[in-house]
Amino acid sequence: MKTIGIGIIGAGRIGRLHAENLIRMKGVRVVAISDLFPEPAQEWAASIGIPQVSGDYRELLQNEAVDAILICSPTGTHVDIITEAAQAGKAIFCEKPVSLELERTFTAIEAAEKAGVPLQIGFNRRFDPNFRKVKDYIEQGRIGDIHSVKITSRDPNPPSPDYVKSSGGLFLDMAIHDFDMARYLSGSEITEVYAVGGVLIDPAIGEMGDIDSAMISLKFKNGAFGSIDNSRKACYGYDQRVEVFGAGGCLTADNDFSNNVRLFDGSGIHSEKPKYFFLERYSASYVQEIDDFLAAVRGEREVPVQGRDGLQAELAARAARISLLEGRPVKISEVENAIKEAAAQ
Amino acid sequence: MKTIGIGIIGAGRIGRLHAENLIRMKGVRVVAISDLFPEPAQEWAASIGIPQVSGDYRELLQNEAVDAILICSPTGTHVDIITEAAQAGKAIFCEKPVSLELERTFTAIEAAEKAGVPLQIGFNRRFDPNFRKVKDYIEQGRIGDIHSVKITSRDPNPPSPDYVKSSGGLFLDMAIHDFDMARYLSGSEITEVYAVGGVLIDPAIGEMGDIDSAMISLKFKNGAFGSIDNSRKACYGYDQRVEVFGAGGCLTADNDFSNNVRLFDGSGIHSEKPKYFFLERYSASYVQEIDDFLAAVRGEREVPVQGRDGLQAELAARAARISLLEGRPVKISEVENAIKEAAAQ
Amino acid sequence: MKTIGIGIIGAGRIGRLHAENLIRMKGVRVVAISDLFPEPAQEWAASIGIPQVSGDYRELLQNEAVDAILICSPTGTHVDIITEAAQAGKAIFCEKPVSLELERTFTAIEAAEKAGVPLQIGFNRRFDPNFRKVKDYIEQGRIGDIHSVKITSRDPNPPSPDYVKSSGGLFLDMAIHDFDMARYLSGSEITEVYAVGGVLIDPAIGEMGDIDSAMISLKFKNGAFGSIDNSRKACYGYDQRVEVFGAGGCLTADNDFSNNVRLFDGSGIHSEKPKYFFLERYSASYVQEIDDFLAAVRGEREVPVQGRDGLQAELAARAARISLLEGRPVKISEVENAIKEAAAQ
Amino acid sequence: MKTIGIGIIGAGRIGRLHAENLIRMKGVRVVAISDLFPEPAQEWAASIGIPQVSGDYRELLQNEAVDAILICSPTGTHVDIITEAAQAGKAIFCEKPVSLELERTFTAIEAAEKAGVPLQIGFNRRFDPNFRKVKDYIEQGRIGDIHSVKITSRDPNPPSPDYVKSSGGLFLDMAIHDFDMARYLSGSEITEVYAVGGVLIDPAIGEMGDIDSAMISLKFKNGAFGSIDNSRKACYGYDQRVEVFGAGGCLTADNDFSNNVRLFDGSGIHSEKPKYFFLERYSASYVQEIDDFLAAVRGEREVPVQGRDGLQAELAARAARISLLEGRPVKISEVENAIKEAAAQ
Repeated sequence: MKTIGIGIIGAGRIGRLHAENLIRMKGVRVVAISDLFPEPAQEWAASIGIPQVSGDYRELLQNEAVDAILICSPTGTHVDIITEAAQAGKAIFCEKPVSLELERTFTAIEAAEKAGVPLQIGFNRRFDPNFRKVKDYIEQGRIGDIHSVKITSRDPNPPSPDYVKSSGGLFLDMAIHDFDMARYLSGSEITEVYAVGGVLIDPAIGEMGDIDSAMISLKFKNGAFGSIDNSRKACYGYDQRVEVFGAGGCLTADNDFSNNVRLFDGSGIHSEKPKYFFLERYSASYVQEIDDFLAAVRGEREVPVQGRDGLQAELAARAARISLLEGRPVKISEVENAIKEAAAQ
Repeated sequence: MKTIGIGIIGAGRIGRLHAENLIRMKGVRVVAISDLFPEPAQEWAASIGIPQVSGDYRELLQNEAVDAILICSPTGTHVDIITEAAQAGKAIFCEKPVSLELERTFTAIEAAEKAGVPLQIGFNRRFDPNFRKVKDYIEQGRIGDIHSVKITSRDPNPPSPDYVKSSGGLFLDMAIHDFDMARYLSGSEITEVYAVGGVLIDPAIGEMGDIDSAMISLKFKNGAFGSIDNSRKACYGYDQRVEVFGAGGCLTADNDFSNNVRLFDGSGIHSEKPKYFFLERYSASYVQEIDDFLAAVRGEREVPVQGRDGLQAELAARAARISLLEGRPVKISEVENAIKEAAAQ
Repeated sequence: MKTIGIGIIGAGRIGRLHAENLIRMKGVRVVAISDLFPEPAQEWAASIGIPQVSGDYRELLQNEAVDAILICSPTGTHVDIITEAAQAGKAIFCEKPVSLELERTFTAIEAAEKAGVPLQIGFNRRFDPNFRKVKDYIEQGRIGDIHSVKITSRDPNPPSPDYVKSSGGLFLDMAIHDFDMARYLSGSEITEVYAVGGVLIDPAIGEMGDIDSAMISLKFKNGAFGSIDNSRKACYGYDQRVEVFGAGGCLTADNDFSNNVRLFDGSGIHSEKPKYFFLERYSASYVQEIDDFLAAVRGEREVPVQGRDGLQAELAARAARISLLEGRPVKISEVENAIKEAAAQ
Repeated sequence: MKTIGIGIIGAGRIGRLHAENLIRMKGVRVVAISDLFPEPAQEWAASIGIPQVSGDYRELLQNEAVDAILICSPTGTHVDIITEAAQAGKAIFCEKPVSLELERTFTAIEAAEKAGVPLQIGFNRRFDPNFRKVKDYIEQGRIGDIHSVKITSRDPNPPSPDYVKSSGGLFLDMAIHDFDMARYLSGSEITEVYAVGGVLIDPAIGEMGDIDSAMISLKFKNGAFGSIDNSRKACYGYDQRVEVFGAGGCLTADNDFSNNVRLFDGSGIHSEKPKYFFLERYSASYVQEIDDFLAAVRGEREVPVQGRDGLQAELAARAARISLLEGRPVKISEVENAIKEAAAQ
């Protein structure tokens, strides 16, 4: 079996995380990494055996030893890189969201489809052992037809105002994972979104035109309902839970904890808070999503999270934004048609 | 301390439950019970020492030994009985809802207020040890300002079509408890309701013009959000949970179980389903609500669930019904104004 | 079905508890209660409708309306009362232990057997919903052959030195419940006991010649092992758990809690301590044991905890005492033979 | 900081596990691995970048690039290798037990002490996040003086008869981890052991002269008690729990699970069995123990598990064996003195 050559675009936190996971995997080699500012990554790259650090991602696309690229650069660069990488015939893994502009997401997905290259979107939570087990049970029919999906998704701390400014807002930056999870677990498309939300935590987020708290109501094509509960700050840590209720039962997935010790004392019973944040909580999922991507590159399986999955989640996020602003439920088809019309012009 | 004389109107399941709880309490005596069909209740009443079973509730209202009445008769009779009991100067405990017609609920509450008699509505779940503990923690400031309230409320089995027909529908019959719980826990008024729902369980319920599943989104006056998740059938039993999230923490109350044994075997870990239904799950709350009512009758405390609480929950249920039918969020003030206008005509 | 007339001997805490439970049961009537000091019990007895309070238990034994007696007087009186009650043909329920002197326990049991009257010993924990469920699973063969039984039994607070003095010591006063539970759950006889223990909590207990902490190792006739862990003071409340391990699985029964609320905050997750003490924790078991006793009195079933069960637990307690004092494992047969020899002399 | 050169002796399961963990660590390099049968390890070693595979461990001891060795060869070879490695001035990490012959354990420990080289014993469970947290709380004084330590330690499946034959028996092969845990958590020395045990699972184990089930009672120097519960087969998986009870509270550490999903259905609530066996359950601990060993080699800290710790656990295991055979509690000092006398002859 041929060793897969990987090029990583973007040497920030998530790019490095993927790199460090990749060097432990078999049948794959990180050929090169690129970053607009390559200098600070040099030493780190050398220490884990990445031979080349480039200042220009195009060098990776032109490198014949690179079979697949991981796009870990800022969201604004995704569409161009996907398009160019597709033309260069590389398999593509791209962090979410594809784009903050839905019209451009279409373009990128079409480029990949036209070129016939695999395109996987980085919805890593699908690969979390808890949520994957929930999905397994659903697929085994253990809870029958699904009636509702409820997602609790709270960060331990709000992002900096700077981050918020370029993030696309709570729905596109944070809830997008939950929209994807809702689609993944329900096995159905979201058809309507109604969002209530506001600034309950940090006025600075409000000043950026964003919100920090939301409760989102969903309708699915298969008749099920959903709800997503988002907060930018849960003082007890990263709160990531799902519940799926069906005709034959109910499935719950709880948070993960760094230990399970319980202390019984005169004031009650005490245990550890959930794991702090996504790097700790979802560490296994970051490995698994790349494992599955590599298998898809080898042609052993379908890409597990397709470009169209990225698009659907972005449509839901856009619908949530409109819903919040206009105080009404918004159909996904309404957003989709508007995008298509805009794209047609 | 004078012994309180109680008259119970309605000798059905809930009337008998209250009677059997009352005979174990101190400082109170069940003087009489009435039922349109008094015959079947005779033997039971004698066996627990209730001296009189009447076919006409008015006999209880005229009985000077009756200080307080418990209205456990069908919903359609509540308003008239409240009005007459208020005029007779009796303290009143009335099962929920006060009425299926909001305009008449107004009338009844005003009658009690005008007469200056205590009127308590039977939202027993406020007295559940779990939910009361959640409320206590909130009042102690343990989770700071409240950001969201989430309620899971699923019955183990759908009611009979006959029951559904006269029930007022899922929102007024079932979710009304949850609207009250949402107000109780948030410490704030519901200002807007958006409901999605449908018939996922029993087509017969749909034929009655009702739904059996719903997901309700709430806005509260204090800026918090809420969600209520209702189902008429959870195959694993009565599912009654709440979660309150605030700036300083999160509170969860789980289901109750008849034992806590865990069986570890080759196929996993297994434990008991939640307690079957409300009589088992909420047995302690039925005692506590009457205890508190008796204390209010004695003037030792405020009535814990007032007539206005009954009204607010009914307003939310009505708003949910409109929301479902019209596919839009509905403000409580819109419903309230419409009721007031109707009442004014 | 004839109403059973009950006489209660001893109007202390446990006598009153049984009385208050009995007045809520059907087909039974508390005819009289006796206490060496009848005065303080008069008002209480009247308030719950017990017509007679006597200063002499013999009046109860002579009362033809009394079908069964509950012996709730101090341990030192049990044997005489059992013997006399048996002669009077009364069905007998006796609190544990039958006696602090094993030789006399024999006598009492023989008296009851000779008279052919039912004799039930008050090992109420067998009737706890958790432990009973464990037993049910075992009897259903859910964990196959039993390999070990582990019991955790810790009180929330040590008894007063006065109580300790007349208690018979930790093994006979406290661990006796656990010896019975070990027999009940294992479905086998204890054959050997090895006890380590000491005074870790309250030197005053040591001054009385007793211990306050112990770890007891058991062998059962069926080849299984056991361990009992006793403490007179668990600062977090009454700790009552069992674990039974078998070839086909493991069963655990946890403590009971007054609510199941969890508080998540910046310092972790917090929940309630176990229920405080036996009156709260075992309230259901006190009702159930009398229910089953009444059924036995009616001839509907066997006495669920026989005199011989009381004896076996006392033999184990005696063996534990010898083991602790002599620092060696002690066979139950050794103790039994010694008792029989002593009785024969 | 100088890179530490590691030589691994033994390329079986545990040797390879350490090797694969080491290649991910910083500041350390696996220089060579040896095995009596080097052939089968060649390809594996090459794939993870170990430059040399030797058939003779002495080559590693003579290799100047090797600063520290990991002894992962069969128990029978430990003492000789420790002695020679100490003479060669290498830092030593040795899997447990040091030896099946206590007299030789003495010799090995003395050799390391005389040479002044660090010697760490592979009691990896001390480094498990759960048990370490329990220890942390104890050291913080969160439960005050310790009264008892209870350890549940059950394997998912019995070893093969071949393995049993050379294992040293249940106490020295399996319970030895628990003896170490008991010492670690109690912070005190075991002074007396009483063991009951037998063959409840696999007669083949009995034919080898070993047992497969045991319940061990412990006394500690500080007055606390302990109990260890061992089984070679828990059909629901690897059962590894501890409980430490003290004057100020109680600490429990539960099993670990591969996910936390709960399935509620008509038959109850179901969740996953514990992780299967030590490689899954204790994976983090194998990394952490080597991390701490490397820190000790660098002189940054004390060796966390010393040779004397290995010895004490072996003394307890020997005492348990004698206790089982002779049916009496055995003092550690009795075993220790016997060993010293034998060593003196």
